[in-house]
Amino acid sequence: MIPEFMEASKYLKVTALAGGVGGAKLLVGLDKVLQPGHLSAVVNTGDDFSHFGLHISPDLDSVCYALAGLADSVHGWGRKDESWQVLEEIRRFGAPDWFALGDRDLAWHLERQRLLSEGKTLTEVTAHFCEVFGIQSRVLPMCDEPAPTLIKTKEGEWLAFQDYFVRLKCQPEIADIALLGNREIAASDLVIEAMLEADLIVLAPSNPWVSIDPILALRGVRNSLQGKPVVAVSPIIQGSALKGPAAKMFADLGIHPSSEAVRQHYEELLDGFIFDDLDLPDAENWQSSAIINQSFQTIMKNDEDKIALAEAVISLGARILQGR
Amino acid sequence: MIPEFMEASKYLKVTALAGGVGGAKLLVGLDKVLQPGHLSAVVNTGDDFSHFGLHISPDLDSVCYALAGLADSVHGWGRKDESWQVLEEIRRFGAPDWFALGDRDLAWHLERQRLLSEGKTLTEVTAHFCEVFGIQSRVLPMCDEPAPTLIKTKEGEWLAFQDYFVRLKCQPEIADIALLGNREIAASDLVIEAMLEADLIVLAPSNPWVSIDPILALRGVRNSLQGKPVVAVSPIIQGSALKGPAAKMFADLGIHPSSEAVRQHYEELLDGFIFDDLDLPDAENWQSSAIINQSFQTIMKNDEDKIALAEAVISLGARILQGR
Repeated sequence: MIPEFMEASKYLKVTALAGGVGGAKLLVGLDKVLQPGHLSAVVNTGDDFSHFGLHISPDLDSVCYALAGLADSVHGWGRKDESWQVLEEIRRFGAPDWFALGDRDLAWHLERQRLLSEGKTLTEVTAHFCEVFGIQSRVLPMCDEPAPTLIKTKEGEWLAFQDYFVRLKCQPEIADIALLGNREIAASDLVIEAMLEADLIVLAPSNPWVSIDPILALRGVRNSLQGKPVVAVSPIIQGSALKGPAAKMFADLGIHPSSEAVRQHYEELLDGFIFDDLDLPDAENWQSSAIINQSFQTIMKNDEDKIALAEAVISLGARILQGR
Repeated sequence: MIPEFMEASKYLKVTALAGGVGGAKLLVGLDKVLQPGHLSAVVNTGDDFSHFGLHISPDLDSVCYALAGLADSVHGWGRKDESWQVLEEIRRFGAPDWFALGDRDLAWHLERQRLLSEGKTLTEVTAHFCEVFGIQSRVLPMCDEPAPTLIKTKEGEWLAFQDYFVRLKCQPEIADIALLGNREIAASDLVIEAMLEADLIVLAPSNPWVSIDPILALRGVRNSLQGKPVVAVSPIIQGSALKGPAAKMFADLGIHPSSEAVRQHYEELLDGFIFDDLDLPDAENWQSSAIINQSFQTIMKNDEDKIALAEAVISLGARILQGR
């Protein structure tokens, strides 16, 4: 065990910004190693959309299912022990089946829609899920308003994120990305509170463009980061993303995808940066900066990997705090 | 085979007013014996409600599932070969489970909601279902606007119909019934067209108070019945309803439940009335009127029963038409 971690894990309050699958894995690690209630996860809702009249929050669901131990680790999305009765029948109607709605997953979409229809906020509904499944960390949607991420293709068409991501399988080349539906939107009060209370801010290994940037774009977020140590974990390893279009987005936008590119993307915010051991040779050429760079085994195949990376993140945060 | 039926079935166009289960059985019989496209079913939507954000039309679904051969004949509602994965998971959330949402049933609720969200009318959405499942009869929701039936209890509380019917299992005593949400609502254009085109109007063996009366209360319906032969089939047999609260509603409203009470309920509209053979002894005491009363085996346990009753209805209609 890393020595700084031993002490720091007893008191540190961490607020982590995250998207879906990759981010959720690190959140599981942090949830397991921090004191109960000391982790707040601020989760991207830029991917949220309405499907069959139901509000669907893909990133929130990935995070909640992962923290509840309900996630399907084989597919990397959705629920484990899932069945597909409803989707099979939906296909009989010739209805859209590009978004895979499992039966258990659907039960939560229905209950969320019911609670939203009653006037509850997405924050309240998410808290209800956490209560039902005994999640002790706080899971916070980044805001309660619709804040859609829009993707502009090289053909000039604007796409809703799920259209780009799931229906078109990320194939269109990206010309531009519009965050928060091109409007000014404030983070929820609880998000700002979680940022201000945190000893350490973590940018999870999620897509910088469409998972972390939407959160950072919310009014109040960058201000509340002032003076806080911020540690990011690179989602890019050896020029690729383990899951999702992050690397392709860098390339579409004319940037060579690499952990260095991720570091530069976040540079003005960062105090510490964790990248994969596989990228260590490249790191030797990085331009010097005030950021503490550290390599680690960042591929999380099981809970041990998640815990080890969480410990490395906390240790690096503790080092930064001690150096102040 | 009844002789009048032989000839009449070749040309008669029938428009039947119906609620859910009992009415749907007769519709199946009529669908099978009439020429393709010669049956229009006008179906009560007073029971429609929103559940988990989805528009649910219990009577329309019973009719559509029955005509598509998809109905669960054991339970008398919902889909055959049904599974319950979603409902099981919904219970884990402590969400309301009083309305049994089967997986296959739910697929249609989702697709209907999706199409309604796109701006389609309930009439158009229902036509889509009929097309997918090859139903040749026309199934028409009585109107496209919300037209809720409300139940006032003896305690003075007004209940939405599904609250009374499913959640409270029809236990509260009824003091009053308000149709169409106490507003003036017109029947859809296609409903009026179907009434005007019909050679014979049938009131299916459905609940007179909450299945047939809402349709009759719509603006335009009673006018379009003028001069048409109308035949009703009693849903009350030996003082009871085979399914649902029809008999209890008569009693709550101070009327002894009987096929005679049904006949009197519809009296001003009727030319012919079919009641069950079991009620034949009572019928001898009925006051004479211009209505042709006829007893028949009205309990429909299988398709043969449904076809036989449909033939009896058409024959009686043909007799009335010939007598003009």
